[in-house]
Amino acid sequence: MLYIGIDVGGTTAKAGVVDENGHILVKSSCKTGIERGFEDIAADMAALCHRIVRESGHTMDEIAAAGVGIPGEQSPKTGLVALCNNLGWVDVPLKERLCTALGVPVYVDNDANVAALAESVFGASRDASSSILVTLGTGVGGGIVQNHRIHTGAHGVGGEIGHMVVVVDGEPCNCGQRGCWEKYASATAIIRMGRALMRDKPGCALAARLGGDESLLDAKAVLDLAKEGDADCLEIFHTYVKYLCIGLSNLISIYDPDMFVLGGGVAYAGKFLLDAVRESLGKYLYCPSLPYARVELATLGNDAGIIGAAMLGRNG
Amino acid sequence: MLYIGIDVGGTTAKAGVVDENGHILVKSSCKTGIERGFEDIAADMAALCHRIVRESGHTMDEIAAAGVGIPGEQSPKTGLVALCNNLGWVDVPLKERLCTALGVPVYVDNDANVAALAESVFGASRDASSSILVTLGTGVGGGIVQNHRIHTGAHGVGGEIGHMVVVVDGEPCNCGQRGCWEKYASATAIIRMGRALMRDKPGCALAARLGGDESLLDAKAVLDLAKEGDADCLEIFHTYVKYLCIGLSNLISIYDPDMFVLGGGVAYAGKFLLDAVRESLGKYLYCPSLPYARVELATLGNDAGIIGAAMLGRNG
Repeated sequence: MLYIGIDVGGTTAKAGVVDENGHILVKSSCKTGIERGFEDIAADMAALCHRIVRESGHTMDEIAAAGVGIPGEQSPKTGLVALCNNLGWVDVPLKERLCTALGVPVYVDNDANVAALAESVFGASRDASSSILVTLGTGVGGGIVQNHRIHTGAHGVGGEIGHMVVVVDGEPCNCGQRGCWEKYASATAIIRMGRALMRDKPGCALAARLGGDESLLDAKAVLDLAKEGDADCLEIFHTYVKYLCIGLSNLISIYDPDMFVLGGGVAYAGKFLLDAVRESLGKYLYCPSLPYARVELATLGNDAGIIGAAMLGRNG
Repeated sequence: MLYIGIDVGGTTAKAGVVDENGHILVKSSCKTGIERGFEDIAADMAALCHRIVRESGHTMDEIAAAGVGIPGEQSPKTGLVALCNNLGWVDVPLKERLCTALGVPVYVDNDANVAALAESVFGASRDASSSILVTLGTGVGGGIVQNHRIHTGAHGVGGEIGHMVVVVDGEPCNCGQRGCWEKYASATAIIRMGRALMRDKPGCALAARLGGDESLLDAKAVLDLAKEGDADCLEIFHTYVKYLCIGLSNLISIYDPDMFVLGGGVAYAGKFLLDAVRESLGKYLYCPSLPYARVELATLGNDAGIIGAAMLGRNG
């Protein structure tokens, strides 16, 4: 059988026709955008699905189900997308609209959960009994997968690991709380620390590299200089790794997954990041003498969203 | 069938003969103590089990299994108790010794996990699909139960919720880390804040109640005065509830249990605590508009350890 996987973002929705083995036969995208109404976007998404199925040389009859990863939360009670900040959606009937338009069962889950599912089926954690994907991007997203099924919890709000508070009364977060992990372990945190460095020490290597232009600052610039051995950027990197490891340690103390998978923009630092995390994690554990989760990098990249959404449909 | 439940503590081990319905037929105890060797304690525990079975009017043939709750961790890989600080045990073969001495299968788990299991089978969370017991005592213990089975994680180190870090670089914890939740949400945290109050404000109601004697200070004294409306102790109480709720919120963001059960010494404050937690919890949630875990008080009291240990055996 074949499946449709849809990865909904704030500016585009990507969709693919995916086979049982996680291979994407055809993929394409359409625009979303917070300025457009839900009905229009839902109609475009349905049209996109019909189009890619045609382009794949198959028919909708051969599609077993469709899955959708959204940057928000669907309430398991109401079946409505309760909250989707990037698209301004509140209590919208996404599942029902697509179900009607496509004539197949539709499954909806959070995008980070869906990416975690993809990694657990075809990616870095495919051999793990349980895994937590930690996406280190603008924020920190995540998904917990146990025996190849997403753990969303009793009310569908679990797996929001980026909003675990690690510093009570700490940095204000977009969610309205303070001190959330994502304020310290995201690419945004590296940029914040880089900015502070450029202001405190205008002669630093980072400022020189960027010609003093703060607007050019991204996490990669800091990470690249840290890799090159620049002391200031290494200090930022070590602070970052400390906060990252404390959050991972919390997840071990609570959930104790078989493994962690690191994804998102910061994970492009690759082995440099992975080695640092592996070296540091034990220092922050409650009981480091017992075995604990191994850490690997995500392998599916940007396709994880489409593949994981399709697997939502396969898992049913 | 009948089961033996053993609740091992730093000074005594309590054991009971428990029936299928969680009723304790006979219970008794023996001494433990960090100064005594493991072999002597294990022998005494085995003798205690044989004695209570006799006293119950049954024979060992009628015992299906024995369960043990320990203030530490057994490694699922080695089957040894890897760590049990209160008893100075490191890598001791508790399961094997008792199995040989009793001639029945023996199951070992952390004492807080075992109490959580008891509450989920016969106590406050018996109707919950998943629950987290949070014991607010000298430290903060806890256990996660899903479908009446303890979630110990892939390496047996999950459910150690008291050691989730909520204040990076915060109060030093006995575990060697800093800023663990139990440094802010335990009875010990209330005592610490009470002591600071007595020092900063010698004329306060708390100091008056205790005749200025810090050695008489316990969490109950602070909670009692808070209940009576004393402004200083209410301030401590509200600070305590804030930290307690932030930890619960973290557990919701990560695990999203059906419900929380509050136990341990601080939970004896009863409705006063429960009302405050229920009122405050929503303020600290990532997405308070979605449904989230209800909160109740534990109902099994001190017998939870024996009953839960017996249920370890029943669950197999």
